[in-house]
Amino acid sequence: MSFKTSELHRRYHVAILGATGAVGREMVRILEERKFPVQSIRFLASRRSLGKKVRFRGRYYSVSVPSRNAFKGVDILLASAGKEVSRKFAPLAVREGAVVIDNTSCFRLDPKVPLVIPEINPAEIKKHRGIIANPNCSTIVMLVPIYPLERVNPIRRIVVATYQSASGAGARAMEELRTQSRDVLAGRPARRSTFPHQIAFNLFSHNSQIGREGYNEEETKMINETRKILGRKDIAVSVTCVRVPVFRAHSEAIYLDFKRPMSAARARRILRKAPGVKVVDDPRRNTFPMPLEVSGKDEVFVGRIRQDLSSGRSIGLFVSGDQIRKGAALNAIQIAERLIGNV
Amino acid sequence: MSFKTSELHRRYHVAILGATGAVGREMVRILEERKFPVQSIRFLASRRSLGKKVRFRGRYYSVSVPSRNAFKGVDILLASAGKEVSRKFAPLAVREGAVVIDNTSCFRLDPKVPLVIPEINPAEIKKHRGIIANPNCSTIVMLVPIYPLERVNPIRRIVVATYQSASGAGARAMEELRTQSRDVLAGRPARRSTFPHQIAFNLFSHNSQIGREGYNEEETKMINETRKILGRKDIAVSVTCVRVPVFRAHSEAIYLDFKRPMSAARARRILRKAPGVKVVDDPRRNTFPMPLEVSGKDEVFVGRIRQDLSSGRSIGLFVSGDQIRKGAALNAIQIAERLIGNV
Repeated sequence: MSFKTSELHRRYHVAILGATGAVGREMVRILEERKFPVQSIRFLASRRSLGKKVRFRGRYYSVSVPSRNAFKGVDILLASAGKEVSRKFAPLAVREGAVVIDNTSCFRLDPKVPLVIPEINPAEIKKHRGIIANPNCSTIVMLVPIYPLERVNPIRRIVVATYQSASGAGARAMEELRTQSRDVLAGRPARRSTFPHQIAFNLFSHNSQIGREGYNEEETKMINETRKILGRKDIAVSVTCVRVPVFRAHSEAIYLDFKRPMSAARARRILRKAPGVKVVDDPRRNTFPMPLEVSGKDEVFVGRIRQDLSSGRSIGLFVSGDQIRKGAALNAIQIAERLIGNV
Repeated sequence: MSFKTSELHRRYHVAILGATGAVGREMVRILEERKFPVQSIRFLASRRSLGKKVRFRGRYYSVSVPSRNAFKGVDILLASAGKEVSRKFAPLAVREGAVVIDNTSCFRLDPKVPLVIPEINPAEIKKHRGIIANPNCSTIVMLVPIYPLERVNPIRRIVVATYQSASGAGARAMEELRTQSRDVLAGRPARRSTFPHQIAFNLFSHNSQIGREGYNEEETKMINETRKILGRKDIAVSVTCVRVPVFRAHSEAIYLDFKRPMSAARARRILRKAPGVKVVDDPRRNTFPMPLEVSGKDEVFVGRIRQDLSSGRSIGLFVSGDQIRKGAALNAIQIAERLIGNV
């Protein structure tokens, strides 16, 4: 597909791979909300979802299983059906002429694939060779508010602890939190299915595989993707990823060590003007970002903006962002909007 | 009261101030469990608790409201009824000859009052002038596993984010988590009473007052108490305190920057032998400390022991500890045991 600025009124053939998952369904809503110029739309999902219908602009669509011919005529494929599904189908879609905006970790660290947060590195989009990668949700929620600070004063080290909601593990994980909570409140044992440990009224280290150095995949993604997106191979990222019993939206407690002194007042001024960021920082009313209030919102909320008491070069923040929206579906569609020159 | 080693078989007149609260009730259980040499016991609480009975060693005791004469003949007063109650009654009890082990923040930073974690600075106990302070729960949960590392390699900076349970705000806060969770699951609005924000399926910055620099009281306690207990005025503590929808036990994601290089293997070896610490660190099974599993346990659990990928002088940890037991009641009674030379 080629996108020319002269084609401003063009409409596109769009396909969503993983259309029935938590992120896929949010993509459908966001395409509607933002009036994305859709000419035709196709919903693809695994065999498990066959028979399901997806509603888009008042019409119901059947879900089909992706095949060799599924991508014929598709301009933009939004892929969010897991790493292995993308590994198999993204190259096929590219060969058919589609641009794939891939929400899995499959191509994110490939040096030939742009890894994009539109508020940060939109210029990368045009370097694509068919695939553009959407970053990990926790990475997006962290970098959107950090980047405007990094621009004026390079960050040497990020120390971050996450409070990640069940929805990061999909719709079934949210249902597991609900069912387990009901069972625990009724005095019944909590049955596990999606998560390795009880999530109701509990928390645990992120449920992704752990590598040799003791870091789980979520943490490794946050380190490597941050370096790629900021173009800062030297930035230190000390990260701990934790799953908490919240339905939706990820939160993060962050300390940033800067190269030069940075005051809380200056950081607050910069963040108030930053794109995609909303400052909620009211110490008098003890009101700061909370997952409950950011669920369904487009911005990453930031508060607790304060100087480290031991260092004039260090700032503390607390951020909360809807990881299904900005952390996944919205970011992907914002990439698509830039791709078609519609921003 | 004077304690002589020749009095090993002596029994003591004990009083608990705040006997019906979450910590007070745990103190009663721990005095029983650990067979503390109690000659007589007295339960004091606010007017609200009048009429309540407390069971101790098979007998039921009435609760009385503290008065000028309430401390006559008391050897040891365990106080856990809030800062203002301690400010009023601790000096009275001391004047009557009692030693007060105070679980409030009232005297913790008083240079004349020892602030004690028995695994760390037991020698401070004998310097008391009537009052010994019990540290804040989050401070205890953090310092018990950190101290054995600090002993062999001085810590320059601690960066910590907490995951604090409802029980840290008392028994009514736990009930609020239960009631709100039920309401939310039933589709009813969550009513707030103890906490300023909804705690069910949500999280928020710690609900204590926020000072001029933007730090809440819980964070300030962790900074100042850490410095006093470790005797390290120069140690940097970058802290974020967060309340999560867990009933009991506090967890903390910690990074430690040491003066000299420190390997994860060495830290693990030291922690395996450390008093009051239990290592739960199984990356293969993704099993680390969790609040659900440490509730009711005496040790602080530690896992995710790993080297910072950007620094050979930095180590990551995840800890979880029952903040009503080791974080409050148990630590106070361990101080009492040392005081009477019973350890």
